[in-house]
Amino acid sequence: MKLEAIRKRIDEIDRELVSLLEARMEMSLRTRPFKTATKDEEREAAVIEHAQRSRLALLDESFIEQLFQRIMDESKNLQERKLPLVAFQGEHGAYSEMASRAFMPGSAYIPCAKFSEVFEGVSEGAFDFGVVPVENSLEGAVTQVNNLLTHTTLKVIGETIVPVHHCLLVAKGTDYREVREVYSHPQALAQCAAFLERNRLEPRPYYDTAGAARMLNTAKTRAAAIASPLCAQLYDLEILKEHIEDDPTNSTRFLLLSREPSKVPGDKCSIVFATAHKSGELLESLRIFAESHINLTRIASMPHRTESGTYNFFLDFEGSDQDAKVLEVLDKVRAFTPSMLLLGCYPRFNG
Amino acid sequence: MKLEAIRKRIDEIDRELVSLLEARMEMSLRTRPFKTATKDEEREAAVIEHAQRSRLALLDESFIEQLFQRIMDESKNLQERKLPLVAFQGEHGAYSEMASRAFMPGSAYIPCAKFSEVFEGVSEGAFDFGVVPVENSLEGAVTQVNNLLTHTTLKVIGETIVPVHHCLLVAKGTDYREVREVYSHPQALAQCAAFLERNRLEPRPYYDTAGAARMLNTAKTRAAAIASPLCAQLYDLEILKEHIEDDPTNSTRFLLLSREPSKVPGDKCSIVFATAHKSGELLESLRIFAESHINLTRIASMPHRTESGTYNFFLDFEGSDQDAKVLEVLDKVRAFTPSMLLLGCYPRFNG
Repeated sequence: MKLEAIRKRIDEIDRELVSLLEARMEMSLRTRPFKTATKDEEREAAVIEHAQRSRLALLDESFIEQLFQRIMDESKNLQERKLPLVAFQGEHGAYSEMASRAFMPGSAYIPCAKFSEVFEGVSEGAFDFGVVPVENSLEGAVTQVNNLLTHTTLKVIGETIVPVHHCLLVAKGTDYREVREVYSHPQALAQCAAFLERNRLEPRPYYDTAGAARMLNTAKTRAAAIASPLCAQLYDLEILKEHIEDDPTNSTRFLLLSREPSKVPGDKCSIVFATAHKSGELLESLRIFAESHINLTRIASMPHRTESGTYNFFLDFEGSDQDAKVLEVLDKVRAFTPSMLLLGCYPRFNG
Repeated sequence: MKLEAIRKRIDEIDRELVSLLEARMEMSLRTRPFKTATKDEEREAAVIEHAQRSRLALLDESFIEQLFQRIMDESKNLQERKLPLVAFQGEHGAYSEMASRAFMPGSAYIPCAKFSEVFEGVSEGAFDFGVVPVENSLEGAVTQVNNLLTHTTLKVIGETIVPVHHCLLVAKGTDYREVREVYSHPQALAQCAAFLERNRLEPRPYYDTAGAARMLNTAKTRAAAIASPLCAQLYDLEILKEHIEDDPTNSTRFLLLSREPSKVPGDKCSIVFATAHKSGELLESLRIFAESHINLTRIASMPHRTESGTYNFFLDFEGSDQDAKVLEVLDKVRAFTPSMLLLGCYPRFNG
């Protein structure tokens, strides 16, 4: 191995070290709901002992002790900043994280593998807030999220619309003429199909847009990824081209979830209710809104998960739950569909 | 995620951190042959800048600077200890590393992917010494190593015999009754076939014995591995059973390679020479030794790599190259086979 190759390997190791330290900080923030004090001497001793047992030949005992003490001290500093924990589904750099940052700047953004983890984590107090996509302008409703919303105890306390501007990303220093393969989530690949075809790039499906970007950062590949501009920043990638989506109107609507209703006054409400399989029932409920001159902004039906033949309806409308007219309408809806859930009354955030 | 699960994940991260730090120290030792001083301010600034660019959201800039400065300071401390760099083929914990430790206690043991890397690295000065297996009591000659020996400029400066006592290893806390699958190199699995059959364990081929042990340490599996006792120590594994090899006489002979001949007097020599495809030529060379009453300890023939029909012969014999009788014999051999290479005259090490 030549000096240059050794240094390149050291740089790779350092990148992995930083990424593990980042993950460790994230995990240590997640212990917060379980602890009364940030200091736990028994646990600290166990951490150092565990690190010592992992040593092979070249690491000095006192070096490891000092290093891990320093890392744990930094964890405590971070814990004491009491950053809100905002959970989203996906990897760091996902459009959901962009929405999280728009809702709650200066927070700790916690990636979850599944939407249900976001809902459960916020319910149980593991996270302070959750951010979920509810519908996309091209792809329609995000079914899993809407299913979870039908029976949640969480409150919607905000919405934001994130324009989906896909970027073509490469590892820094990659010559664009060498790029042949493009990795991304199949949906993102489909949304950029014309661009890929024009440039004779081969689409390669990957489980996640941000996951594909992260992979470029670690693998030694001349491939590209389609992902958010946030990914370029987080994974130190180069943006070869912005706005490569075929339809520039592509956008996703996200909801901010909390255990408590919004503390700031809202001007938009979301409800969900089930109707029995009886003709005219939905029409009746819509008439209630129309007669009160309340503007609907979304209506979506979804088959009930367990009771076949029954449907859940999502209605979003303009107005505040502090408004007598709105309260009256909600009472009327509740009168003929006892399952009605007021998901929340919330303000709109700008991305 | 419950507190216990979070702490378990932190422990995993810490194990990875330590393992990366170990690899980083190893790499920094390998920069030694290329440098005049251990301190290089420009490189240090570049390392810190690179680490800063890898930060995501939660890591503080000054924390990263301090941490990487501390890691580089420790690298310099380690470099200043001037440990000999001993290269071996395989992963940490390989039987080759056991041999390396027997030859050169208190050194830095550097794993290489290929035997040729060991030879080239020592030749070029990247490593101080190399350790290679030359023959196994059950499997015979290690062909790749013997091929490399036929045209090396390196000197053999020691030999040691390592008994191959395989261990059945599991991650600590694994219940032995749950173990079904056993991972190891196919050769090691074959050498323990009767033991595996008796205990109804399923052999699972893996690229390397030590690699299988390392995998147990990182994967959350209830499988076992067959590997050296050194692996148990290095990867913090439990030895369920020692000496599981079917044939207890299994042992491997290793050579210690250096750029310079042995500084200590040896009592054993290794030579290699090619003979033309002419009947009686090998017999003639053997007669030279017999007439001088020199005991041979090994004879092995190997087809020449490029000249078809020509053979290389490896001869090991007792005696010192300081001894007039030995020198006379070597001259006689050289007289009719000009390709003769004195690989070295060396002492025997105890494992």
